[in-house]
Amino acid sequence: MKTVVVTRVERAEPSAIERLAGLGVSTTHEAMGRIGLMQPYMRPIYPGAAIAGSAITVLAQPGDNWMLHVAVEQCRPGDVLVVAVTAPSTDGYFGDLLATSLKARGVQGLIIDAGVRDVRTLTEMGFPVWSKAISAKGTVKATLGAVNVPVVCAGALVHAGDVIVADDDGVVVVPRADAARIAELGAKREANETEKRQRLASGELGLDMYAMREGLAKAGLRYVETLDEA
Amino acid sequence: MKTVVVTRVERAEPSAIERLAGLGVSTTHEAMGRIGLMQPYMRPIYPGAAIAGSAITVLAQPGDNWMLHVAVEQCRPGDVLVVAVTAPSTDGYFGDLLATSLKARGVQGLIIDAGVRDVRTLTEMGFPVWSKAISAKGTVKATLGAVNVPVVCAGALVHAGDVIVADDDGVVVVPRADAARIAELGAKREANETEKRQRLASGELGLDMYAMREGLAKAGLRYVETLDEA
Amino acid sequence: MKTVVVTRVERAEPSAIERLAGLGVSTTHEAMGRIGLMQPYMRPIYPGAAIAGSAITVLAQPGDNWMLHVAVEQCRPGDVLVVAVTAPSTDGYFGDLLATSLKARGVQGLIIDAGVRDVRTLTEMGFPVWSKAISAKGTVKATLGAVNVPVVCAGALVHAGDVIVADDDGVVVVPRADAARIAELGAKREANETEKRQRLASGELGLDMYAMREGLAKAGLRYVETLDEA
Amino acid sequence: MKTVVVTRVERAEPSAIERLAGLGVSTTHEAMGRIGLMQPYMRPIYPGAAIAGSAITVLAQPGDNWMLHVAVEQCRPGDVLVVAVTAPSTDGYFGDLLATSLKARGVQGLIIDAGVRDVRTLTEMGFPVWSKAISAKGTVKATLGAVNVPVVCAGALVHAGDVIVADDDGVVVVPRADAARIAELGAKREANETEKRQRLASGELGLDMYAMREGLAKAGLRYVETLDEA
Amino acid sequence: MKTVVVTRVERAEPSAIERLAGLGVSTTHEAMGRIGLMQPYMRPIYPGAAIAGSAITVLAQPGDNWMLHVAVEQCRPGDVLVVAVTAPSTDGYFGDLLATSLKARGVQGLIIDAGVRDVRTLTEMGFPVWSKAISAKGTVKATLGAVNVPVVCAGALVHAGDVIVADDDGVVVVPRADAARIAELGAKREANETEKRQRLASGELGLDMYAMREGLAKAGLRYVETLDEA
Amino acid sequence: MKTVVVTRVERAEPSAIERLAGLGVSTTHEAMGRIGLMQPYMRPIYPGAAIAGSAITVLAQPGDNWMLHVAVEQCRPGDVLVVAVTAPSTDGYFGDLLATSLKARGVQGLIIDAGVRDVRTLTEMGFPVWSKAISAKGTVKATLGAVNVPVVCAGALVHAGDVIVADDDGVVVVPRADAARIAELGAKREANETEKRQRLASGELGLDMYAMREGLAKAGLRYVETLDEA
Repeated sequence: MKTVVVTRVERAEPSAIERLAGLGVSTTHEAMGRIGLMQPYMRPIYPGAAIAGSAITVLAQPGDNWMLHVAVEQCRPGDVLVVAVTAPSTDGYFGDLLATSLKARGVQGLIIDAGVRDVRTLTEMGFPVWSKAISAKGTVKATLGAVNVPVVCAGALVHAGDVIVADDDGVVVVPRADAARIAELGAKREANETEKRQRLASGELGLDMYAMREGLAKAGLRYVETLDEA
Repeated sequence: MKTVVVTRVERAEPSAIERLAGLGVSTTHEAMGRIGLMQPYMRPIYPGAAIAGSAITVLAQPGDNWMLHVAVEQCRPGDVLVVAVTAPSTDGYFGDLLATSLKARGVQGLIIDAGVRDVRTLTEMGFPVWSKAISAKGTVKATLGAVNVPVVCAGALVHAGDVIVADDDGVVVVPRADAARIAELGAKREANETEKRQRLASGELGLDMYAMREGLAKAGLRYVETLDEA
Repeated sequence: MKTVVVTRVERAEPSAIERLAGLGVSTTHEAMGRIGLMQPYMRPIYPGAAIAGSAITVLAQPGDNWMLHVAVEQCRPGDVLVVAVTAPSTDGYFGDLLATSLKARGVQGLIIDAGVRDVRTLTEMGFPVWSKAISAKGTVKATLGAVNVPVVCAGALVHAGDVIVADDDGVVVVPRADAARIAELGAKREANETEKRQRLASGELGLDMYAMREGLAKAGLRYVETLDEA
Repeated sequence: MKTVVVTRVERAEPSAIERLAGLGVSTTHEAMGRIGLMQPYMRPIYPGAAIAGSAITVLAQPGDNWMLHVAVEQCRPGDVLVVAVTAPSTDGYFGDLLATSLKARGVQGLIIDAGVRDVRTLTEMGFPVWSKAISAKGTVKATLGAVNVPVVCAGALVHAGDVIVADDDGVVVVPRADAARIAELGAKREANETEKRQRLASGELGLDMYAMREGLAKAGLRYVETLDEA
Repeated sequence: MKTVVVTRVERAEPSAIERLAGLGVSTTHEAMGRIGLMQPYMRPIYPGAAIAGSAITVLAQPGDNWMLHVAVEQCRPGDVLVVAVTAPSTDGYFGDLLATSLKARGVQGLIIDAGVRDVRTLTEMGFPVWSKAISAKGTVKATLGAVNVPVVCAGALVHAGDVIVADDDGVVVVPRADAARIAELGAKREANETEKRQRLASGELGLDMYAMREGLAKAGLRYVETLDEA
Repeated sequence: MKTVVVTRVERAEPSAIERLAGLGVSTTHEAMGRIGLMQPYMRPIYPGAAIAGSAITVLAQPGDNWMLHVAVEQCRPGDVLVVAVTAPSTDGYFGDLLATSLKARGVQGLIIDAGVRDVRTLTEMGFPVWSKAISAKGTVKATLGAVNVPVVCAGALVHAGDVIVADDDGVVVVPRADAARIAELGAKREANETEKRQRLASGELGLDMYAMREGLAKAGLRYVETLDEA
């Protein structure tokens, strides 16, 4: 591993990030063509949080949060800190002191493929975290990792500057260069869904609205009154 | 697999279903003789929901929610949709559009041995879901499954028309033909528990109330002041 | 296994227990030198509960809660019931009746390396539980275990009379004899943290506050503008 | 639960069972239309075992193997013992004594959704077991379950007399009434595969042999030299 | 944590250790009254190994094997190294170099609640390891732990000098002071089992040999020809 | 997702690949600076296999192996097929027919972050597979994925043409451009280890060979005869 801090991070257009925040994770993920989603074990520490921001990435060693302290300095308002680890861990790499520091810099939240602690205080502060675990186990500051190198976090590749969208459905990564295009695609999907939602709410069946009946019949679906007829 | 939709579903008496709803999962499961419980990994997406209704069953293929759209048409007011999968999956088979459609038909909730998405919207809609996972990962509509065939969902056998009881303690399945009898047994248990609760609240020990002391002594339990005496 | 109930339990000073309650799990665990923490799969059934009390320990057999009834009698106001099992289990060993009984005796909460049920009622009662699972599966009363013997619960050794501290970050065990010393160490940590929190909130970097820059450079950390320079 | 032993078990034709044994799990599962497979956590205690036989089913209580002793008497030569549990367990319900007894009755192997022990001796005896876990933890004989009632074992529904096929790929359940038909379907698949195997071994591509190219193109697959063209 | 190495370790009588090795894990665990077993996720890296020896204990930090090097010096011929970790980890703390060193000192094997690597070489060397994982992920040497302090390893309490028995069924811990007594109890069980095995092999049913029929009937077990009668 | 097949794959020098094969996973991973390792749940279907080759990558949809058939045509002698999935799956995407086809093209093995079947036949063929699961569950051919795009497989980023090294310790990914350099670094490590191994085998302690005693003392390690002194 190159034990470096990359200091120049290009970020996506603020307007694209803002639109992705409005779309949320599931719509963004659809617009991405269903790639870029972190594993579903990544859960928010409290319900209702929804953020989007530019990734500042950290690659941390087992039970060692030294690099998180280094990464704070690289964060700008609106960023999201993304922590990957070199080996599976549930340790509590992050607590209320680091959150205080990040909040002072305008960071929106933390994504960590490991554990977090002080979750009650973080909840009271309104500092959202998506993590693999909650654990009081603290960490040491002994071994170097890296900041703003590409990392794999919970199964998703993240480059510094990629847009992170996170809400109750999970966490998705949008490559920086695609942010505007994905935001646009997602907006179209959503416009489309509003009308669908109204039709479904009024009792129209998806079978009819999506014109599925013919395809189902062609694929061989049969309707029977009882299993004995099947 | 027979790729069929069984259209005739016999349901339990509404009064029995209503009584089971009142009993909740733990009492119903006890009344069942401790069978019929789904695996404990099935968790509600928000706390406090408690439902009972007749099962409309779906057997779905990996990452494919085509059959859920088919199943909607088979649902009646008060039903509960139960989705089993042919192989372990955490994909988000179900979101707010399907929930809107089910709600329009009076369906009470969803039980799915896979993932669900749009959980914030579902929570706001008050549409409860018990699932194995939460995941933004959408699904395709390419391969047939079946509707209203017997399925194994999270370790429990479910026939269409069986009564599903779900609350914060999990999900239990009551065979249709047993619903009235189980509701009655459960009501007796509960009446019995109210008195016990009062006695325990007043300080009486379970050891005395359940007359356990003799049995414990006979089984060989010894009271010692310190481990050294043991 | 010695199938005994040890009746004499020495407890820590109430003042030490009270101070540990105030410190919470993460600070207490740090003060302990980062030992004594239960596995992170132990989660509270509702957020926000925070307790500390003397452990009454139970070693229970698979799917059998007989010993929990025995243990109730050994509890005093302020105690915490700690249940270990002889083999991995998710069964619901504990529900609202046992909680009513424990509450009548002034017990503060339950720590159980297995399942719990009636969680909605327990939440309404304000009786907190930290458990490995939630499950409606009831248990029998057929095989003896032990009460107040040393147990391993969720990976941590617990002697009767040890202080249990539990909150949203997990559960930590403080040996009885160390309680006062750990409470003092923890209080010092906390005093120290208040000042740190203020400095970080005002925008000072941890890198500077903890004087990390020299150590990082000595360990070989390099700052580069882009990865190509690395 | 009905605490009964059902003594009359209808079994499939021996010739059908024999043919299913020859097909193995994967081919049988395909012939079934991809249903009836137990969860993939069911693993053999040693590689290379491959059996098929009629199920004698047991529903056992947590940490209690009383019903296994009862079930032995119901077994005939060629049968396979299938043990389901009323709650998740890894306990060692079965060891070399029970295996000796089953072997004396001509039973071919054990399928258990829990743990097994004495695995070295079982391996030396050539008595195959497919289980969820290996554990030395013994069990008690205190609570009734049932024998030859329908059970859900590792996610699959099993009736007494169903045909169990088990090998290194897992365990599949064939309903008794379907055994002959599935054996025939499977034999056709296999005949078909022999020719395919030869063509593929000679270097023919599946793309051509299965005539996939047109379908892939129609679905939108594009061939590009580099990602930049994509 | 006290960062110490305890140098004086009392060991059990070699004859008791030898007898426990002969009994194996399952019989020893039974003789212990079914306590002291490590979690079933502890698996041998190759089948067939069976050892017993005195524990030299290590408490190691996340991703840090410094203390293992320290512990080597404390080992004597016949010992077993037992490594616990302060937080869940799958890292490869141990490989062929450490094994070479331990083998040179006559150590019989390793028990580690984390990962191990170089497993092919370890297998060729005939140096057995029971571990939670296999992982090539190496570790650092940066943070102190402890040697020969009491540890909880995979759910079992281990004091230095306790007897570790490990084979294909798992790992069990026998307190040093109990070793001779447990060896004797186990030998009696085994003598008893030899006769039972012969009777079962000759076709006698456990139902009769253990005289279970009366107890089963009293508990309410009923024999029926078909479920309809139940 | 771009549903494309990238046909031009640059591969590393054969000599570098060969040397990496000789080093094995653990040494290669160390030479990489401890990055690039797949998650430890990736296990070989039989022990003893050890390969290195150029990655042909597949991104497959849930329960759909269409793209594997497409990928076969892109493989050359010495390559390794690497299959990632868009959502967690244990399905058996790969069996003996695909293995026959790959073997005919000289492919060395398969790495798949999902399930595999026909494992007995694959073992007899000597076609090694590292997978997350073994499952007889077959897959459909209905939805496009991609071939030779960058994928995240079991937590590691893989580009087509990267060198995959796999053995009993797991699977590591070496970026194509780094292959020669890493092979050289690894060879130095290994030369170094041979001498160390001999010294350790002769009884020299790692404490002395690595000159650790001073560092340990400086870090505060204390040697005590008994815990009471600590």
